[in-house]
Amino acid sequence: MRHQHHIAIVGAGLVGSLLAIYLARRGYRVSVFERRPDMRKHLIEGGRSINLALSNRGIRALSEVGLAAMLKKNAIPMHGRMIHDDKQVFQPYGKDGQYINSVSRGGLNTVLLTEAEKAGAEFFFEHRCLHVDFQKTGLTLQHHQAVQHKTFDVIIGADGAFSAVRLAMQQTDRFELRQSYIEHGYKELRIPPSDSGDFQLEPNALHIWPRKSFMLIALPNPDKSFTCTLFLPFEGAESFKKLKKPEDVKAFFSQHFPDAVPLMPALAEDFRDNPTGSLVTIQCFPWHRHSTLLIGDAAHAIVPFYGQGMNAGFEDCRILNDLLNQYDDNWKHVLPEFEKLRKPDADAIAQLALDNFVEMRDRVADDDFLLRKKIEARLHDLYPDRWIPLYTMVTFCDDLPYAYALEVGQKQQAIMDEVMRTPGIARTWEQLDFQSIVSRL
Amino acid sequence: MRHQHHIAIVGAGLVGSLLAIYLARRGYRVSVFERRPDMRKHLIEGGRSINLALSNRGIRALSEVGLAAMLKKNAIPMHGRMIHDDKQVFQPYGKDGQYINSVSRGGLNTVLLTEAEKAGAEFFFEHRCLHVDFQKTGLTLQHHQAVQHKTFDVIIGADGAFSAVRLAMQQTDRFELRQSYIEHGYKELRIPPSDSGDFQLEPNALHIWPRKSFMLIALPNPDKSFTCTLFLPFEGAESFKKLKKPEDVKAFFSQHFPDAVPLMPALAEDFRDNPTGSLVTIQCFPWHRHSTLLIGDAAHAIVPFYGQGMNAGFEDCRILNDLLNQYDDNWKHVLPEFEKLRKPDADAIAQLALDNFVEMRDRVADDDFLLRKKIEARLHDLYPDRWIPLYTMVTFCDDLPYAYALEVGQKQQAIMDEVMRTPGIARTWEQLDFQSIVSRL
Repeated sequence: MRHQHHIAIVGAGLVGSLLAIYLARRGYRVSVFERRPDMRKHLIEGGRSINLALSNRGIRALSEVGLAAMLKKNAIPMHGRMIHDDKQVFQPYGKDGQYINSVSRGGLNTVLLTEAEKAGAEFFFEHRCLHVDFQKTGLTLQHHQAVQHKTFDVIIGADGAFSAVRLAMQQTDRFELRQSYIEHGYKELRIPPSDSGDFQLEPNALHIWPRKSFMLIALPNPDKSFTCTLFLPFEGAESFKKLKKPEDVKAFFSQHFPDAVPLMPALAEDFRDNPTGSLVTIQCFPWHRHSTLLIGDAAHAIVPFYGQGMNAGFEDCRILNDLLNQYDDNWKHVLPEFEKLRKPDADAIAQLALDNFVEMRDRVADDDFLLRKKIEARLHDLYPDRWIPLYTMVTFCDDLPYAYALEVGQKQQAIMDEVMRTPGIARTWEQLDFQSIVSRL
Repeated sequence: MRHQHHIAIVGAGLVGSLLAIYLARRGYRVSVFERRPDMRKHLIEGGRSINLALSNRGIRALSEVGLAAMLKKNAIPMHGRMIHDDKQVFQPYGKDGQYINSVSRGGLNTVLLTEAEKAGAEFFFEHRCLHVDFQKTGLTLQHHQAVQHKTFDVIIGADGAFSAVRLAMQQTDRFELRQSYIEHGYKELRIPPSDSGDFQLEPNALHIWPRKSFMLIALPNPDKSFTCTLFLPFEGAESFKKLKKPEDVKAFFSQHFPDAVPLMPALAEDFRDNPTGSLVTIQCFPWHRHSTLLIGDAAHAIVPFYGQGMNAGFEDCRILNDLLNQYDDNWKHVLPEFEKLRKPDADAIAQLALDNFVEMRDRVADDDFLLRKKIEARLHDLYPDRWIPLYTMVTFCDDLPYAYALEVGQKQQAIMDEVMRTPGIARTWEQLDFQSIVSRL
């Protein structure tokens, strides 16, 4: 039966392309409709991040279609954060051998598109979704000047934070929606390789310049450059609004990121030419109407501060595939089950991503924060299965649901708040009764 | 200068029509585009409430264009709630002479349309807004098969909870939006006049059958019928989902509203034929982009339980007009000022309306609730300017902002919670030290 089923995927981004591989390999006829031209033939349009942090959840989803090894070849391991303050301080993300991977969005997407085609999925570029008929599982698609209507057995909207499929779904009765922006925008900048062709900063780290109300970060690229991202409020005393002239930009960077300025020869030009992006969180429910489903950012766009947007979208694909196995491809059961299972996790990672922004820009340079990390690392060493730090649960585990990580993380935080009130803790922490701390969890 | 300005209003409902009167009288050229046919020539389509409670904020807005007296002629005063429990108990809304008004939506809208035309506004019916160009202040409008583009000096979206103007605005950068539904739906039913042509219930009251998780209400009409509305969860033990067959409906009504059933001869047919509506709250920000503004339900749709949706929309018109006076018709100042001034009030009445549902369906029949009302009425009698009950601030005042009412109401509630813990309060309340209670506010 499944061979006769025709599935439309709207969006040929990272999640749409990976899902196309999963579904084509299951034997479905898969048609993918993408608004943009084929990125393999055209330059990627600006305004989206150039590199991303691939971690264990994403890797697991890629493994299950046999692509993890190939994709990790072009990835640069980042073992921890390099904090740029008065001096540089390295904070490992986890234990030895645990790291996240800086990957190129374009490179990853290209591989997924090509693999999806190999698996039999058909791609239709420059096809814009204008309308969805949920009753008939139909799409109205615009290609250049032509508009056509097509019907399918299942439609999956993998068309990102500003999903056209969700916009149509939003206009059906009793659709809950929240779209909210943080007060910060972002701008991408670049640290090129040195004249001798080398990385200008430690390559195996995610660099952070935490400045409380704002921050600069940098991720390594295979060409030995770094992509930097400035996260700064749109308005206020220190804001994009105040950085209109090249002199303003240079003065701001010299004051706040003095060690980065010499590494960024094109700073003023990049700042002027690159767009200022905004950062949205999208929460909605339900994720399906009749036989149309939202997935990835279309269902749950989050801010980038936990590096989990792509990983969560890839995990969506893996979990949807698991449910198709479990329910023998009965989509009538799979669609409601998917949203029921996955919605609490989507809400949890949305919250964790917002919380982690405060940690990255404001707390990573605190002595208190560093001491907490040290104590938690010791707890994890002593009781590896009983105390798993929140960052590890989210990033290095691929089987703990995000909602579980959030819940346990909140308990850990309450316990650690109490531990940190121990008088003289900075000197005496190694004498703590770790057994008793773990037993409170 | 203002005479040259051309203003488009999208939506010829209650708020759009009243605003057209205000703006045409200021000397603007006003064009109103309405998706539906002219309601004066066609039957109103179903799915919207038939009567509404007009109270002081709405009356003030109508007064300022000289229409209050005319409109109050066709209104039926409701001096309080009539609670249908084991027996009927009347609870006045305020002091003698304070009442809300049951008015017909269609009748009111018809008067406003005709007055707006008299004031010089032009109406274009069966014109659907397809798209808004905020940069150019342009509308794309569809009339039958023809699509046209028009530009204006100002566009105002008064096109209701499912506003097309807001849908376009939602797709601009950094637009905050929340649309959320309560778990209850509603269905309108009817109590016709008696055989002798009389009201079958007390006409000067809003009738409530409070049943904790659901309720029935009834408002009087000039033709001596009542429009009843059942508010009931969509799903669950007692829900619309469980009322599929006429027998189910009759059994449910006989069990829960035994005194209403004999008054509703067409109950089963009405129940079957009338749609089940859903109840949305819309919160968004900003309310303007360039020279396009949202107003009324388009900016802040609320649930109907405080009877303030229309009143808030009418108050929007009055306040916008006040700002045009204050800023000498400089829209560049008026638009940001309007949203800044009005957004906290919109959020406050949204919250109050949700809270009042719990009061209406669950608390109005409690002895504790009645005693609180009695004590508050005494406080208001003794200190009319210092203790104004929340319901009075919202409903019978026309100058206290909703946000102020909410804030003071919360303080009053905290004080009353404490008062209600006085031992033996039910017997001894008249001996309370009212002076000291008021002084805590």
